[in-house]
Amino acid sequence: MAEKIALVGIGKIARDQHIPAIHGAKEWELAAVVSRSTALDGVDTYPTIEALLAARPDISTLSLAMPPRPRFDVAVKALNAGRHVMLEKPPAHSLAACLQLQRLATEKGVGLFASWHSRFAWCVPAARAWLEDKTLVSLRIAWNEDVRRWHPGQHWIFEPGGMGVFDPGINAVSIMTEILPDPVHVKEATLLFPKNRQAPIAATVAFHHGGGADVRADFDWRQEGPQQWTIDVETTDGHLCLTDGGSKMYVDGTLVDDGLNEEYPRLYRRLSELVTAGRSDMDLSPLVHVVDAFALGGRVLVEPFHF
Amino acid sequence: MAEKIALVGIGKIARDQHIPAIHGAKEWELAAVVSRSTALDGVDTYPTIEALLAARPDISTLSLAMPPRPRFDVAVKALNAGRHVMLEKPPAHSLAACLQLQRLATEKGVGLFASWHSRFAWCVPAARAWLEDKTLVSLRIAWNEDVRRWHPGQHWIFEPGGMGVFDPGINAVSIMTEILPDPVHVKEATLLFPKNRQAPIAATVAFHHGGGADVRADFDWRQEGPQQWTIDVETTDGHLCLTDGGSKMYVDGTLVDDGLNEEYPRLYRRLSELVTAGRSDMDLSPLVHVVDAFALGGRVLVEPFHF
Repeated sequence: MAEKIALVGIGKIARDQHIPAIHGAKEWELAAVVSRSTALDGVDTYPTIEALLAARPDISTLSLAMPPRPRFDVAVKALNAGRHVMLEKPPAHSLAACLQLQRLATEKGVGLFASWHSRFAWCVPAARAWLEDKTLVSLRIAWNEDVRRWHPGQHWIFEPGGMGVFDPGINAVSIMTEILPDPVHVKEATLLFPKNRQAPIAATVAFHHGGGADVRADFDWRQEGPQQWTIDVETTDGHLCLTDGGSKMYVDGTLVDDGLNEEYPRLYRRLSELVTAGRSDMDLSPLVHVVDAFALGGRVLVEPFHF
Repeated sequence: MAEKIALVGIGKIARDQHIPAIHGAKEWELAAVVSRSTALDGVDTYPTIEALLAARPDISTLSLAMPPRPRFDVAVKALNAGRHVMLEKPPAHSLAACLQLQRLATEKGVGLFASWHSRFAWCVPAARAWLEDKTLVSLRIAWNEDVRRWHPGQHWIFEPGGMGVFDPGINAVSIMTEILPDPVHVKEATLLFPKNRQAPIAATVAFHHGGGADVRADFDWRQEGPQQWTIDVETTDGHLCLTDGGSKMYVDGTLVDDGLNEEYPRLYRRLSELVTAGRSDMDLSPLVHVVDAFALGGRVLVEPFHF
């Protein structure tokens, strides 16, 4: 029988990804949504998290698809009410807030899932398996997209805490940390801030790798024309390339795996496994690398950016 | 009988603090130092960590008083060689590097101590005990000192990763996280960067507190005249004030505790307890708050700074 779930926050990502994924999952029944302004046909809508928690003790699991800042207080209330919680990425606006949620979930004995949707891209498991026994020579992330196309008019993304180009960049980092068998840490970074903005529009990050491999990431939001979400990995036994955000995988130039974009359906399947097993999955390493890049990064001012 | 310890890095902090503290401790015998350039009278000196580890299996514990960047590789070598390790603050230049060291120490079954010397200021235990059963109304850190006086000509401290005013500021944060019974996380921050520098010369940080208390920190390196290292705490049952970096404590205006600066002797006593018990102490919360402030902070350019 399907488990009841409620979705909190009915913005673009919820409509584009979460709702279709839940509706398509045999494991889940969308039993309610929380939204102050929007109703969803055929689903009970509550104006606040408090109203939902009071009225619906039958709903064991909440998926929080709202922005990270208001999400923290909602997550605290849900965990305190003994519900399992899934968090959109990034799990909170600060690392310390993530750690607080983690401790609270442990205290309450409920499941907490920090979801990184890009890890559920089609070829990520195959890439991880291929790399497992290889010796790394270099890894290069190239995550270059047009911010005007993907975030039109979203000024908040350039405000303090908006993360700037690390908002998509953290997706690449979440794949890298999933497929690399070895730990890395930020060695140095350069962050390009438009003169009129408070978050970087581009960044380069160099990572320390224990085996001496050259691990680097380039993130750029000024990419016009073809968009690029690529991770290139050179090993002593061949070359792996993930393109299209992880949905295509090449080994030594040959396409070996290619799948549909089913990130969110897979992510909700994982949530079901966690809830059934009574476990949490709160890997914070993508966020750790991003905050490290902010703390260690040199800053360069570049020309003002206007949408 | 005293346990043998080696000190790696013989800079200013080692001569001012570590060497006198070790010489004064009945728990420790300074058996060797590692330094490429400096010898220490009456103590075996090795030019490299590798030379020390190869020659001295009798030394169980290493204290690393060198700067954070080179410290990581040295710590990895020491932990891999099965030695207990104490790290000066901050434990590494990035949070991910700290987490790698923590995992390695667990794997190797050796003790790792991320030391925060300010937590060993005289009145910190009394402040912690006093606050334990109080309800917080507000906490205000004022950590204002003259960088020309305390870091004359140290250009690296303004370079990327040098942390700027958070180098002393993290000491205040380490006290706050030790004495506050409740968790907090950075809500917003403003970082003041001199136009010619890559690290902030001043910062204000506002923290989220679950009980709604007003928790803030002001760090400023442009303080001339009297220096200030104060933490003021208002509760529903009175007012606590720590001054002089935690060596004086006032309750409702009355001096209730006042002690010598014995931070490093206390710190080495703690190291001895950890090593004897086979335990680690790797609380990363001060560094978490600092990297969060960098990631969330708005940036303001201020006038160029020259030593």
